[in-house]
Amino acid sequence: MSFSITRQDIRCMTEGCGVKLLRVGPVGQERPAVMDEAGNLRAISEPEIDGAFLASGGVARVREALERDELPVLETEGLRIGPPVARPGKIVCIGLNYRDHAEETGAAIPAEPIIFMKAPNTVVGPYDEVLIPRDSVKTDWEVELAVVIGRTVRYAETHEEALAAVAGYAISNDVSEREFQLERGGQWDKGKSCETFNPLGPWLVTADEIADPQSLGLRLWVDGEPYQNGDTKNMIFHVAEVVRYLSRFMVLEPGDVINTGTPAGVALGLPGTPYLRAGQVMELEIDGLGRQRQTVGQA
Amino acid sequence: MSFSITRQDIRCMTEGCGVKLLRVGPVGQERPAVMDEAGNLRAISEPEIDGAFLASGGVARVREALERDELPVLETEGLRIGPPVARPGKIVCIGLNYRDHAEETGAAIPAEPIIFMKAPNTVVGPYDEVLIPRDSVKTDWEVELAVVIGRTVRYAETHEEALAAVAGYAISNDVSEREFQLERGGQWDKGKSCETFNPLGPWLVTADEIADPQSLGLRLWVDGEPYQNGDTKNMIFHVAEVVRYLSRFMVLEPGDVINTGTPAGVALGLPGTPYLRAGQVMELEIDGLGRQRQTVGQA
Repeated sequence: MSFSITRQDIRCMTEGCGVKLLRVGPVGQERPAVMDEAGNLRAISEPEIDGAFLASGGVARVREALERDELPVLETEGLRIGPPVARPGKIVCIGLNYRDHAEETGAAIPAEPIIFMKAPNTVVGPYDEVLIPRDSVKTDWEVELAVVIGRTVRYAETHEEALAAVAGYAISNDVSEREFQLERGGQWDKGKSCETFNPLGPWLVTADEIADPQSLGLRLWVDGEPYQNGDTKNMIFHVAEVVRYLSRFMVLEPGDVINTGTPAGVALGLPGTPYLRAGQVMELEIDGLGRQRQTVGQA
Repeated sequence: MSFSITRQDIRCMTEGCGVKLLRVGPVGQERPAVMDEAGNLRAISEPEIDGAFLASGGVARVREALERDELPVLETEGLRIGPPVARPGKIVCIGLNYRDHAEETGAAIPAEPIIFMKAPNTVVGPYDEVLIPRDSVKTDWEVELAVVIGRTVRYAETHEEALAAVAGYAISNDVSEREFQLERGGQWDKGKSCETFNPLGPWLVTADEIADPQSLGLRLWVDGEPYQNGDTKNMIFHVAEVVRYLSRFMVLEPGDVINTGTPAGVALGLPGTPYLRAGQVMELEIDGLGRQRQTVGQA
């Protein structure tokens, strides 16, 4: 998979979309990088983009290095883009967090956030293959705003305290197997943790560069057909409330990922339930957070 | 919390309970250790007991070092025992896996394993304090056989293949908040991931030292009163089937922990639902896997 800077990316740069952290290289050998304002990919002299990096002022160090213009430009031809943060300590997901998605699945609007989890080893790069599990006939897509935690948060009292713990944002595809999730025992986790089920990236955009996380369009296509076209303004529980709420039930730590829910337009809710088949291509986009593209394979 | 070798431990040694791996020291600074057949704690020259250790033949290295009698004896006075494996990549739990526990909670006997997850940062040492979450009135105990994975397993076809991926066993207390779990949105994870909710240890006993994981008594007391007294022979889905089944839905990796379910006797199922209160003491025991003891505190 080659990496190419699009006109859209340049426009985003010009409009101030801000610091974009990436991890590039072969699977398991990704190296940290940053995209500069001219659209060049530059190597970062940090061991990883992970919880330790985020908690220790890594973003500020990268900014300073960018300003001093001391980071070497990377050759991007043929370079794979991995997930923008190393293996998270946990992935927490919010269920039915868009009114239209709750309605399409026939579920009630939740009175408080629904929490489930995804195995952290589901994370793959934004252009990696997504595998339909063996014995699966109901593999589905979900474009979501991912929140990456930058500092430990426990029993946050206010939305300000919650937002202060957010390092940044990325695109997440919360791939889901609906039979495993809904028809095989009652707890959703069973359909959420199959290998390759969480493409993440391409970038981690720092929180201070997203003026309003509740005003981002998010879209998903399969084989070029538009299926999801939502806006984070329609979240039932906003990012600040999600983080505050979660921190009452668990300790969120640097590098943790929160998938904040998906808008309407998943296969489960569509006439004919057009679940994924091997060979299809998913494309995802969130304003200011770039694009993903995954080919569907078979495990 | 001081560590002391009991007569029971010595007896277990004499009867061949086998290699017991531990991590000892202050929270976050635990160092690997092994208990020898004389009941001495000995330092191991490995950086960690974790997935990398287990996957790289670490157990065999420790055995050889023990046989060569080259491991220094540790002073145990005042030494804290931490969890026996470092932060797992994931903790997967099996719900309602003992018939009597399913019945006491009023649930149907599951037709296939129920899967839910616990945040990996819930793991604490076997003698550490367990905190009742803020706003909690229904914090409950669950003694469980924990399975620690030693090699990557994906789509296991047979029980033999599944068991070959098991590094060993330990005691787990799958602490649960029943209101959070059952009355706050429908997915159990919400009541399973509060801080300190997974005491683990004291030892990781290697799998080849447990003749039959389906023939272990497991017991739990609160303030000296016996509440749980079960046997792993009564598991609905045995360890081999649990690992085989899980590997169809997710990739299990070295260092991952599986909590295999709890027998009857939790507060949720008892007359008067005697949930935990600060100041109480839980004690847990599984044949061949040692004992735990936690004082209950308030978050």
